[in-house]
Amino acid sequence: MNIPFSRRASALSSSAIREILKVTERPEVISFAGGLPSPASFPVDALARAAVRVFARHAEAALQYGPTEGYAPLREWIAARHGVAAERVLITTGSQQALDLLGKVLIDPGSAVLVETPTYLGALQAFSLYEPLFRALRSDDDGPVPEALDAAQAQGARFLYAQPNFQNPTGRRMPLARRRALVERARELGVLLVEDDPYGDLAYDGAQLPSLLSMHPDGVVYLGSFSKVLAPGLRLGYLIAPPPLARKLAQAKQAADLHSPTLVQVLAYESVREGLLEQHLGAVRALYAAQCEAMLAALARCMPAGVRWNRPQGGMFIWVTLPAGMDAGALLQRAIERNVAFVPGAAFHVGEAACNTLRLAFVTVPAERIERGVRVLGELVEEAFPAMPVD
Amino acid sequence: MNIPFSRRASALSSSAIREILKVTERPEVISFAGGLPSPASFPVDALARAAVRVFARHAEAALQYGPTEGYAPLREWIAARHGVAAERVLITTGSQQALDLLGKVLIDPGSAVLVETPTYLGALQAFSLYEPLFRALRSDDDGPVPEALDAAQAQGARFLYAQPNFQNPTGRRMPLARRRALVERARELGVLLVEDDPYGDLAYDGAQLPSLLSMHPDGVVYLGSFSKVLAPGLRLGYLIAPPPLARKLAQAKQAADLHSPTLVQVLAYESVREGLLEQHLGAVRALYAAQCEAMLAALARCMPAGVRWNRPQGGMFIWVTLPAGMDAGALLQRAIERNVAFVPGAAFHVGEAACNTLRLAFVTVPAERIERGVRVLGELVEEAFPAMPVD
Repeated sequence: MNIPFSRRASALSSSAIREILKVTERPEVISFAGGLPSPASFPVDALARAAVRVFARHAEAALQYGPTEGYAPLREWIAARHGVAAERVLITTGSQQALDLLGKVLIDPGSAVLVETPTYLGALQAFSLYEPLFRALRSDDDGPVPEALDAAQAQGARFLYAQPNFQNPTGRRMPLARRRALVERARELGVLLVEDDPYGDLAYDGAQLPSLLSMHPDGVVYLGSFSKVLAPGLRLGYLIAPPPLARKLAQAKQAADLHSPTLVQVLAYESVREGLLEQHLGAVRALYAAQCEAMLAALARCMPAGVRWNRPQGGMFIWVTLPAGMDAGALLQRAIERNVAFVPGAAFHVGEAACNTLRLAFVTVPAERIERGVRVLGELVEEAFPAMPVD
Repeated sequence: MNIPFSRRASALSSSAIREILKVTERPEVISFAGGLPSPASFPVDALARAAVRVFARHAEAALQYGPTEGYAPLREWIAARHGVAAERVLITTGSQQALDLLGKVLIDPGSAVLVETPTYLGALQAFSLYEPLFRALRSDDDGPVPEALDAAQAQGARFLYAQPNFQNPTGRRMPLARRRALVERARELGVLLVEDDPYGDLAYDGAQLPSLLSMHPDGVVYLGSFSKVLAPGLRLGYLIAPPPLARKLAQAKQAADLHSPTLVQVLAYESVREGLLEQHLGAVRALYAAQCEAMLAALARCMPAGVRWNRPQGGMFIWVTLPAGMDAGALLQRAIERNVAFVPGAAFHVGEAACNTLRLAFVTVPAERIERGVRVLGELVEEAFPAMPVD
């Protein structure tokens, strides 16, 4: 029969990254494309012990329906960690659900949404279903440029979406002064800030910068996640929002999935209540820092002059800029023929974008394969630009 | 600051049932209001053993990101159970998410959606966010009346939503002839059917009627759930849809929460693969049949003449019709003063509805409290209609 799709459904498509990932499932492919955390970082034994405790002591609570807002002890633990009241915390089925709920309660068709340049693809995908018009804020190596957020850009904007810590895709971190200036602009212009922070705990040196939330609690929605610090298969995230917005988001969540799995919430709480994150994060940071160092070293050894990249202080990604005029999409085609994959930067832009950037994810690839994969990329860049001028 | 809510957010409110449940959390309240499964029915030991196996043998798969469509072995198990290809199966975060995804990909503002009379409140809540116009199909004790589904009602309708088995709120089941007639009408008129079946495994005698899906696989979306047969705290459901619709729903799910928690999917699969449902369902059915019998006996003893109710053959609900002109909402007010709660039937209707119906949920209340609670309700009905004529 003829399926009567909605208008928004016609615009839906699978993410570019997921499509690339399908191509690269063959074991011989060295993939710098996926954003998967390293399984070596999962605290399997601690979660297994917590699961035994959950079934022995909290089985009924863990298996029954629960409040839409989330398991109260977990909400309180999160609230204490961020210095906010628990009524502001809503547990979500991964951060992705927080993005979807924000789109639902804040975006009308045609309303403006401000994003960094480039920005996180999953957020664009979630918001797009609600048919906004995206406005790309001019950004530099420190994140969105505060001066770019002017009255014209702010006019009618429902919110500004940003990842201040080790952004996906660039790996960049907003310095403290930039955070202050951006919050000040947003406050003056009455623009709600959405601070997406899945990687904040992954600073290699463990040092944290103040969140936008801490600077302006009534003007910021903060999105947190257990995916990178416990395990993504839990699909456990949370948001912190001003109370009227938190209540509305909870109503939208009730219609979306009633609540996130209680079992997973109780399990996570039983894992973190006695300090698992503090014990565990050091090892994750050390692992990711070593992986990052391996990729930076390979880039320095294998990339011809004219190729630039940043040096992340945390997280899972490096952002590479090829010589002007070079097309990362075409490079990907040739790279896949030689069993190497990455994500071209154009996927992370709204509207027009230079084609000469790409994202490299490094946390799941063994150092020896990082070296081999980067060497292939370096050779392909050289082949494409044999007489490339040094810039 | 001023939160810029979307138009659809302004229409959001918390469900009437959730509000009643808040009032009735006091332990002295005898609540026939909630639709919670009985915790006595949770297979705690089997799930605990499965959790140990999952962490010992499948930890990496259970903790890593997974495909949006769901954990392949679980999809295949579901597909085999329903005699369909696995590509038609999408794992969801509870059936509630399936309702939300269907709204997302099938409803435009103002488009028509057909529902039974009365119908499941959670579905109304999920669909409402996408701003449809509901059309209530005339229904009787056997479900929607096929003749009521005519060309005028079908015109432009995106789908017809129904619960053929032990419907929430009425507890009624569609007989086989009714199913056939309804499917035939829908096929002729090109109306997509959404068959929501959370209670199908809860027939007290274990006998199942053929699903609408089995009669018309390319014109039916089937919604299944593990909430009532394993545990609701898993938030694990699934849908079965014609392939083009299944693909579109998967894209919408990707934007909504990437995928349902892998850990929960692997745990459920490890529980059911060796026949847990078959071993376990007998006990759940026997428990629920006994609870239903206790409530029916109490109604027969305590209700004055003029009050009618049905005799469910499965599930968790009894539907009570008070004398014409009596207001179940007013009765609830007085009942809560005497520590008894239920849900007035008006909550389950779209548009105009008689006020003299109510839903009684019986599975979590001990028999002795069922008796006491129903006696209170009987007394209140008598007080309100002291000289009530026998009908």
